[in-house]
Amino acid sequence: MKRRNFIKDSAITASTFSVFPNILSSVSDMSSVRLGFIGVGARGMETLELALRRKDIVVTAICDIDTIHAEKAKKLVEENQGNRPVLFTSGPYDFENMLSAGTVDAVIISTPWEWHTIMSVAALKQKIAVGCEVAGAASIEECWQVVRAVEDYHTPFMILENVCYRRDVMAVLNMARKNMFGELIHLEGGYQHDLREVKFNNGQQLYGGGVEFGDNGYSEAKWRTLHSVHRNGDLYPTHGIGPISNLLHINRGNRFTTLSSMASKSRGLHNHIVQHSQGGLDHPNSKIKFKLGDVVVSFIQTQNEETIVLTHDTNLPRPYSLGFRVQGTKGIWMDINKSIYLEGMSPSHKWETAETYLKEFEHPLWKKYESDASGSGHGGMDFFVLNAFIEALKNKEPMPLDVYDHATWAAITCLSEQSIQQGGMPQEFPDFTNGKWMKRKPVFALDDRY
Amino acid sequence: MKRRNFIKDSAITASTFSVFPNILSSVSDMSSVRLGFIGVGARGMETLELALRRKDIVVTAICDIDTIHAEKAKKLVEENQGNRPVLFTSGPYDFENMLSAGTVDAVIISTPWEWHTIMSVAALKQKIAVGCEVAGAASIEECWQVVRAVEDYHTPFMILENVCYRRDVMAVLNMARKNMFGELIHLEGGYQHDLREVKFNNGQQLYGGGVEFGDNGYSEAKWRTLHSVHRNGDLYPTHGIGPISNLLHINRGNRFTTLSSMASKSRGLHNHIVQHSQGGLDHPNSKIKFKLGDVVVSFIQTQNEETIVLTHDTNLPRPYSLGFRVQGTKGIWMDINKSIYLEGMSPSHKWETAETYLKEFEHPLWKKYESDASGSGHGGMDFFVLNAFIEALKNKEPMPLDVYDHATWAAITCLSEQSIQQGGMPQEFPDFTNGKWMKRKPVFALDDRY
Repeated sequence: MKRRNFIKDSAITASTFSVFPNILSSVSDMSSVRLGFIGVGARGMETLELALRRKDIVVTAICDIDTIHAEKAKKLVEENQGNRPVLFTSGPYDFENMLSAGTVDAVIISTPWEWHTIMSVAALKQKIAVGCEVAGAASIEECWQVVRAVEDYHTPFMILENVCYRRDVMAVLNMARKNMFGELIHLEGGYQHDLREVKFNNGQQLYGGGVEFGDNGYSEAKWRTLHSVHRNGDLYPTHGIGPISNLLHINRGNRFTTLSSMASKSRGLHNHIVQHSQGGLDHPNSKIKFKLGDVVVSFIQTQNEETIVLTHDTNLPRPYSLGFRVQGTKGIWMDINKSIYLEGMSPSHKWETAETYLKEFEHPLWKKYESDASGSGHGGMDFFVLNAFIEALKNKEPMPLDVYDHATWAAITCLSEQSIQQGGMPQEFPDFTNGKWMKRKPVFALDDRY
Repeated sequence: MKRRNFIKDSAITASTFSVFPNILSSVSDMSSVRLGFIGVGARGMETLELALRRKDIVVTAICDIDTIHAEKAKKLVEENQGNRPVLFTSGPYDFENMLSAGTVDAVIISTPWEWHTIMSVAALKQKIAVGCEVAGAASIEECWQVVRAVEDYHTPFMILENVCYRRDVMAVLNMARKNMFGELIHLEGGYQHDLREVKFNNGQQLYGGGVEFGDNGYSEAKWRTLHSVHRNGDLYPTHGIGPISNLLHINRGNRFTTLSSMASKSRGLHNHIVQHSQGGLDHPNSKIKFKLGDVVVSFIQTQNEETIVLTHDTNLPRPYSLGFRVQGTKGIWMDINKSIYLEGMSPSHKWETAETYLKEFEHPLWKKYESDASGSGHGGMDFFVLNAFIEALKNKEPMPLDVYDHATWAAITCLSEQSIQQGGMPQEFPDFTNGKWMKRKPVFALDDRY
């Protein structure tokens, strides 16, 4: 699909459904965006650094409950941009003052998961565009809240799902669009990342060094670990499901219909506490019973009858792997063995190294922006996700990963919790588009613009 | 566990439950076994060839509805053993005459899946030991039938699950028994094998060359393909679940509790017919609607709270892979990337090549029998499975893969069909041991005997 056609089609779609009749009326000067940051912890700072590399962003406001973080961020802005952003550090609701100050066109939200919805909705109500970090939802209702805010206030929302921009993932998307895998049949992905030293630290360093969390922990361990104490489900679905969603045109001609999940026993976090040199059986945290199963696997079925397996595996010793598998009627790619098989091209019944194909079918975006992306976070992905948010905003075009993507992906977390609670019973997916999925067209990374 | 202890424990178990109070009273001379073959098609012939290598087997009877196959098998026996086996080729029920002729102590059953139960039960009723090829069940009741026959007639039954003896699988079992993976948490396996040229041929050759099946097909295409026409489930679960079952001590201190499955759309077989040079849209088989989803994935949960993902993927172009994953609190092995990670041994967060470990922890059976196994079917596995059946029989010891294993594994097929029919609803696993699983001890490959 050519970009021009897409714009045309998307105009048709817009007139049919009128989601953004007056997109971004709040952005006064489209050549640059006045950007605010809510949350400048470890993740927020990474995005801030990327933002400061751009000439089309002016960072005008920074909000964090931690004054040290906020000051550090402010200093970075001053050094790089010359201007002095206004700080909002007066407690957890000071973001409301930042949003009503009238100094930002858009915000980046990089706060603990449970704050994403309330902050996003507050911004959208002020017609401030939102780029929100990824998370799972605690309730279906909180997904609807963001959807309603976008629809009611005609203000863009982008879910900053960076893995959608991973180099191999985009090359495979490019290949799939050229029909090289044929009709897609079965996909897998997940989040398989040993987070034990993220969930526990010594209260001073970002990772490890102790078995503390909550009030005694630092950074993510302060809040993220609590979800492992209390919840049993796929707590972090977006890195796996984002790329799959783009490949299957979810909410754009297709949709998720049901999800069911199962969870293994929970051993990894307790063992980590007990076996750690700073822990042991006498450490109070050794008494905690973690609800999160070490491995949580979810089945997702789609309207177009593809199957998806999504794995969440964060408590056990293991190398990082998102475990992607893209399988169609003509071939299969898997990332774990870096291999591909395409009927009629690969030697019969034998895997080929994926690298050759991934290079040959490099996505246009990566071809164009490789040097800009290099050195940016997470192997370049972070460059692309911020770039897309800012460019779509400036061009008053639909967000490439929008509120329906966000709601659908985030819902996986609470649906999987429900399914596990019910012994693996399938759960119906809400249709957050209210039927618009039948007419909506793909917009994600159709060319080399963003 | 030392072999001696095992024998002792197993004696206790036997006196508690009295499954085989008078095991194998029908085998007159324990130094050699009079063996009959029911089914000497492609698979039966492979096993026959292996049997003829052994001095402790006399092949006395051969049954097949296909006279050409039977004669070929007879000739092979004569050439190798000197004796002339009696042939039973008078229609599908001639196996009954073979079983009542009093000339066999044991039979190998390698017939179409739907015949396994009726033939096994008929043999067991005659106190003839059964070594049965693997298959999925069409009903839970047929699983119970074999269980009841073994229990009622005190006659051994072994399911000939050869992948349980795969070299890497046994090395990993050995490592797991040494606690190198810690407490097991999550396992995966399956049957991922492009069977399109098995399901369709030209009626003359074993594999491919046409798109015929059923009456117009040859060998497996004659009967196996029909299951893909009519059934939607995991049609062939044992190669994946067998090794997993041994690792998790299923029916021996643990058991499967629930299963749920999902199936993708069905495209591969139809496409194969339409795109084949001998097929096309005008070929009558292009009108057939295959029920079998191209990819069927099942979740299995266990009493001890491990999780299992089992994949069945036989209709699409892909390299062969059973997709094993064995993951515990201390590490993980995957066969797709031939890699292993063990905490404290592997470099932090990095995969290691599995080969080094697999060699170092080679199972005692493979160490002892490597040269005997070499050249036998399926990379040596076939040697071990027949060897185990014959040795256990001669020694009047429990079958290493017994009727409870068989029933539990075969049940997966009909349970997965039911779950798919019900949109992914979890299905309860029957306890084919009627509670004996709580006391039964592992017996599979505990040492280097068989």
